[in-house]
Amino acid sequence: MSTLNTTLLCDFYELTMANGYFELGKKDEIAYFDVFFRKVPDGGGFAIAAGLEQVIDYIKDLRFTAEDIEFLRSKGIFSEGFLDYLKDFRFTGDIYAVPEGTPIFPNEPMMTVRAPSVEAQFIETFVLLCLNHQSLIATKANRVVRAADGRPVMEFGSRRAQGADGAILGARAAFIGGCAATACTISDRDYAIPATGTMAHSWVQMFDNEYDAFSAYCKLYPENATLLVDTYDVLRSGVPNAIRAFKEFLLPKGITKCGIRLDSGDITYLSKKARKMLDEAGLYDCKIVVSNSLDENIIRDIILQGAKIDSFGVGERLITAKSNPVFGGVYKLVAKEEGGAIIPKIKISENPEKITNPHFKKVYRIIDNETGVAIADLLTVYDEVIDESKPLELFDPVETWKKKIVTNYTARELLVPIFKDGECVYKKPHITEIQSYCRDEVATLWEEVKRFENPHRYYVDLSRKLWDIKHSLLENRGKK
Amino acid sequence: MSTLNTTLLCDFYELTMANGYFELGKKDEIAYFDVFFRKVPDGGGFAIAAGLEQVIDYIKDLRFTAEDIEFLRSKGIFSEGFLDYLKDFRFTGDIYAVPEGTPIFPNEPMMTVRAPSVEAQFIETFVLLCLNHQSLIATKANRVVRAADGRPVMEFGSRRAQGADGAILGARAAFIGGCAATACTISDRDYAIPATGTMAHSWVQMFDNEYDAFSAYCKLYPENATLLVDTYDVLRSGVPNAIRAFKEFLLPKGITKCGIRLDSGDITYLSKKARKMLDEAGLYDCKIVVSNSLDENIIRDIILQGAKIDSFGVGERLITAKSNPVFGGVYKLVAKEEGGAIIPKIKISENPEKITNPHFKKVYRIIDNETGVAIADLLTVYDEVIDESKPLELFDPVETWKKKIVTNYTARELLVPIFKDGECVYKKPHITEIQSYCRDEVATLWEEVKRFENPHRYYVDLSRKLWDIKHSLLENRGKK
Repeated sequence: MSTLNTTLLCDFYELTMANGYFELGKKDEIAYFDVFFRKVPDGGGFAIAAGLEQVIDYIKDLRFTAEDIEFLRSKGIFSEGFLDYLKDFRFTGDIYAVPEGTPIFPNEPMMTVRAPSVEAQFIETFVLLCLNHQSLIATKANRVVRAADGRPVMEFGSRRAQGADGAILGARAAFIGGCAATACTISDRDYAIPATGTMAHSWVQMFDNEYDAFSAYCKLYPENATLLVDTYDVLRSGVPNAIRAFKEFLLPKGITKCGIRLDSGDITYLSKKARKMLDEAGLYDCKIVVSNSLDENIIRDIILQGAKIDSFGVGERLITAKSNPVFGGVYKLVAKEEGGAIIPKIKISENPEKITNPHFKKVYRIIDNETGVAIADLLTVYDEVIDESKPLELFDPVETWKKKIVTNYTARELLVPIFKDGECVYKKPHITEIQSYCRDEVATLWEEVKRFENPHRYYVDLSRKLWDIKHSLLENRGKK
Repeated sequence: MSTLNTTLLCDFYELTMANGYFELGKKDEIAYFDVFFRKVPDGGGFAIAAGLEQVIDYIKDLRFTAEDIEFLRSKGIFSEGFLDYLKDFRFTGDIYAVPEGTPIFPNEPMMTVRAPSVEAQFIETFVLLCLNHQSLIATKANRVVRAADGRPVMEFGSRRAQGADGAILGARAAFIGGCAATACTISDRDYAIPATGTMAHSWVQMFDNEYDAFSAYCKLYPENATLLVDTYDVLRSGVPNAIRAFKEFLLPKGITKCGIRLDSGDITYLSKKARKMLDEAGLYDCKIVVSNSLDENIIRDIILQGAKIDSFGVGERLITAKSNPVFGGVYKLVAKEEGGAIIPKIKISENPEKITNPHFKKVYRIIDNETGVAIADLLTVYDEVIDESKPLELFDPVETWKKKIVTNYTARELLVPIFKDGECVYKKPHITEIQSYCRDEVATLWEEVKRFENPHRYYVDLSRKLWDIKHSLLENRGKK
């Protein structure tokens, strides 16, 4: 049993800056920060937002314990006034975010924080950690699930996860992305992700022979018998022993649903051979599960080769997003309030793709009313309103002469209020609602955007007003 | 504040198997499991063992709460007898492990568990998760630290970590591997890893101009002023403003120690130019810290190019071990007790490299007494004793005609007792001791084994007795 107050799960500089804002009397200046990412992992066309629920829990629980404050005092650099102020430190600002399960694109805010600078700055590390981790895994899971083309995918990676939360919340994120179940029991208890599992090789080894191991299992779990058939030799020993055990202990009870699991060897070849053996034995309802270092590319490949597989267990390559294990979400200052006015801020960079979109913004997803397809996302200044009865001009923010007029569309705001004046105003959906929402939203994307490699770029455009503000800030660069 | 009992952080099949052993009256049969890995990440020559302390905490805390048991009952597949038994479930077995910080090699046990089968099986998931995660990060950190060639490396990756433990324990593992500090504050509070940090770009943006931001910081933290100089323009604005602030607010106080941080752009070029500007201003004690998507390869490269860097901040590529984010430790049954005798077990595989080393074993590291260099590791059966006064014959386990006779050596046992009959018998070293131990142990390895690419293979040999047992089990394969 471990107890963890994650308030101090922050980069140390959040505290040196917070103490600074406090000491300089700047702590209550209102700041706006955006969370956004710059590149879709694995070269994909979109990412899946996830992790918001854990951000909400964190914000609600945010407080410094006496031990935290004592620890900070021991560092010898924080003022007593600041340490005293931390005793009652709470988040009092506003947070807007896209709901979990939403497909998101580079350079658009997936969250906006408006709060006194000391608070807005402080939460940076944990907010990024949550959103980066779960969006990474949800995005990967969505690729894997789409590759499996309707066959259930189970998340099997706990033992290779990067820490306990990597396993527990990774299973949650994988479910949002479309996985049907997890092996991680605690994710079922705490997050209602269905947990599943039957046996390891050691079960088979603990018996005198494979048949004894299988029959013992079938007797114990007749309704749930998926036998691992590769401990000794899949086709010469595993499958024949499984068939014998099924016939002896399940069929007499009228149970035809059962399964075998392949965890090594040439999955395509073995699954075809095993399917044939099972069918010849009349075990048409016996499912074949496979689980051997799979990812979206291998799954697509073996399906194309005609492998006879009913469901997939995906482990380390999903739970760590192995091929691209970092979701590069960043947290950037986009505006400040000065005398009641919102002053847009920009971060310049030598690298044009690292220049931020300034200002307090809205994100609209433009949906074609006829087809239901998402046409583009449009970033606007916070006070702009889109009149759906009028044609909407979209233009490329770099090659500005490329324009498109959209009619008969719906402009849906993606950022919804989560906290207002420090109070949570968002009703968390159930995890199965998030999963269905994700599936439905992904269905609104063009097939070209869903391509695994070299997808078509989905447009994230700026309104004319926002574009003008950004470019006037760029023109005035270097005046600092 | 979150409370987490991690007992149910287990693959669901651990529970179906546990219930099975219980129901079949097999729960008290003594089983031996080894934890080992098959491949060093990043093609390196060795890994660093880490995560043992968290395994110890987990084993000590292992118990099912009433809620856990109620949750399991709701699954409808566990017997009431088993659920009742779980109320008092504790680990009562023995655990042996290599101390954290030890360089380890493929196919040798880094941990051996001897316990009643139900207990030994149950702990599999969490044990692997802990050891895999921290060994992964410690191994990566050790590469990064060796690349930095004496310059301190700070772990900066919390915001990109895979979950809270990924950040917190990742920082711990990075310290074991040789990092000097972390940005993760809570790792300092809970694990005594020194936390460090100064400012983000947003600090600079919160002021009217860069100079104001820098001078405010120097006034607040004169002893700890490392200024981030790339918000606008490193050489035209950042460094000149930093020099001005240092001269105005530090030098008059007699403070010459300070620093600048580069977080973007061409680090090699910028660091050389910045060094020149700082030196010309007489700021010889001003350190240059860099931190922009670094890893061991980039660090080696920029050092070779003559970059003027005093220390490195390494983020996402370290905290996720991005280039190879999985440590493939496995947990395999190697023996059972039957009527008091220890019966070795082997897991056969189509893939020869996946065949396990059977039996309850010892691991000896053979050290050359003259040079202090580690010559090879030798796996023996548990009851073998090496007489250091006699020459020792080592032979290649595959090409068995390749032999070597060693004299004047020390044979050090690597696996030390951690639990005995469920009681912890191990005194956890302090984290700084683990770090120094790791550094000293890595120093005993041949330079050729420490090469980053294509390292020389370090030998992990089997004693004649163990080799004979393994091969007799292989000869008898297929009899199941």
